[in-house]
Amino acid sequence: MKIAVLQTIVTDNKEKNLQEAEERIRSAAERGAELAVLPEMFCCPYSGAYFRAFSEPAGGRIWSSLAEAAVRYKIAVAAGSMPESEDGRLYNTSFVFDSDGRQIARHRKMHLFDVDFRDGQYFKESDTFSAGDEVTLFDLGGMRFGLCICFDMRFPELTRLMALQGAEAVVVPAAFNRTTGPMHWETMFRQRAADDQVYTIGCAPAADENAEYVSYGNSIICSPLGRILQRAGTGPEMLLAEIDPEAVREAREQLPLLPARRTDIYEVREKVRTGENPPGKI
Amino acid sequence: MKIAVLQTIVTDNKEKNLQEAEERIRSAAERGAELAVLPEMFCCPYSGAYFRAFSEPAGGRIWSSLAEAAVRYKIAVAAGSMPESEDGRLYNTSFVFDSDGRQIARHRKMHLFDVDFRDGQYFKESDTFSAGDEVTLFDLGGMRFGLCICFDMRFPELTRLMALQGAEAVVVPAAFNRTTGPMHWETMFRQRAADDQVYTIGCAPAADENAEYVSYGNSIICSPLGRILQRAGTGPEMLLAEIDPEAVREAREQLPLLPARRTDIYEVREKVRTGENPPGKI
Repeated sequence: MKIAVLQTIVTDNKEKNLQEAEERIRSAAERGAELAVLPEMFCCPYSGAYFRAFSEPAGGRIWSSLAEAAVRYKIAVAAGSMPESEDGRLYNTSFVFDSDGRQIARHRKMHLFDVDFRDGQYFKESDTFSAGDEVTLFDLGGMRFGLCICFDMRFPELTRLMALQGAEAVVVPAAFNRTTGPMHWETMFRQRAADDQVYTIGCAPAADENAEYVSYGNSIICSPLGRILQRAGTGPEMLLAEIDPEAVREAREQLPLLPARRTDIYEVREKVRTGENPPGKI
Repeated sequence: MKIAVLQTIVTDNKEKNLQEAEERIRSAAERGAELAVLPEMFCCPYSGAYFRAFSEPAGGRIWSSLAEAAVRYKIAVAAGSMPESEDGRLYNTSFVFDSDGRQIARHRKMHLFDVDFRDGQYFKESDTFSAGDEVTLFDLGGMRFGLCICFDMRFPELTRLMALQGAEAVVVPAAFNRTTGPMHWETMFRQRAADDQVYTIGCAPAADENAEYVSYGNSIICSPLGRILQRAGTGPEMLLAEIDPEAVREAREQLPLLPARRTDIYEVREKVRTGENPPGKI
């Protein structure tokens, strides 16, 4: 299965961002990709000043544009994330559409990004957003995918639960910055892949030097053995890679980590399943 | 607190290995270290042919030599690991002694290393060893340490439990090889450190080109932000580093990961506590 990771530039013009996303989706489809992945907040600057103004409900302009692009170009779309409004609340939400334009997953970021680094890198996402409360999976092209957003990936419990529920790849729209990026981005994607023996797929916005929050870029695709298959620079770029459930099976056969967990001693367990996403096979 | 990581060469001569370990402990103490860490199987070639022949019970020659070295040189010793015999069973066991020679921790490797890589790297530790069943912590010099052995470190649940039980550093006698080493060693130590915001301290044997199992070496000390503080090459070497609970506190303040876990959604829990090790403050 060929996937495309679209490291797009995000401007303060929503229409322009949408056009850019659609254009890249078209290009991904032309290159034979079956799934196109967009960055976190692909249509809205990552800044508290924009989130509410750019927000829309599910079914609105952004949602519909992506669903339509999926149909038009016959490609599944993991639509990065957008500021989603519902009942006065905002969520940082990722929608996934199959190539018929049907929404097959919705993930609302469940760990909000609140940091205060000494070098001045400060962000408090929880000032603006409400958190989701679901572990999210979807099935596509014979593979099972986990889906989470940026800071969610910091928590090894989450990818572990995904793997236990059958995930073979984890899709992560994300936007690390120039503090957290050089420090943690690559090792996090590599080690989650190695720990859970899944593909990890991180899609970040291209760096915009003029933005308030400068994305690290460096979109990345790692193999189930934790090797880097593809990695972007900081500018607009498309990564293409073949992912194959057979490689997941082989990694797990050579290095049988999941069955070697000492579940008699410790356990990661999901406490609730509230959602609309497939229940999996924990 | 100054720590020394002793990347020693391991031969098929037990006495020589013990003398080498004692000599390095002396040298670490002379350089002001308060804790010396030895590699996994510092006194026995890492090979099924040697484990039983080199095994001893707790309180035997190896155990006593290290306890005595701790007293003699006034330094705590995390005595790598040794093949420990008890009631006909073998364990891959790490003992820790304080500078009065008192045993303050015992960890029996709880995840046994069974792998079968395509490149021919094959090992089945469970043919020889029984597994321990305890999460192990010890307190030294005002800091709390987790202790595990090599393959144990593959399981993020374990270091998470250690961090939740107050660990500020995790000591890991280990011996990755030339398949798993280049693939996973560095990212694993860096990412566990970053995830749990603890120092991670990996101590490997030096590479012996003539050994059946060639150690990767590359002993490593990572900061609570996942930065590499010290890293060895493949030969015999001593790493020295200052570790400071204040750095742990600062990392956790700037990037508050542990309180951001969604414990309403998922949980890592320890199912039993059977051991003699301090109960911690989960």
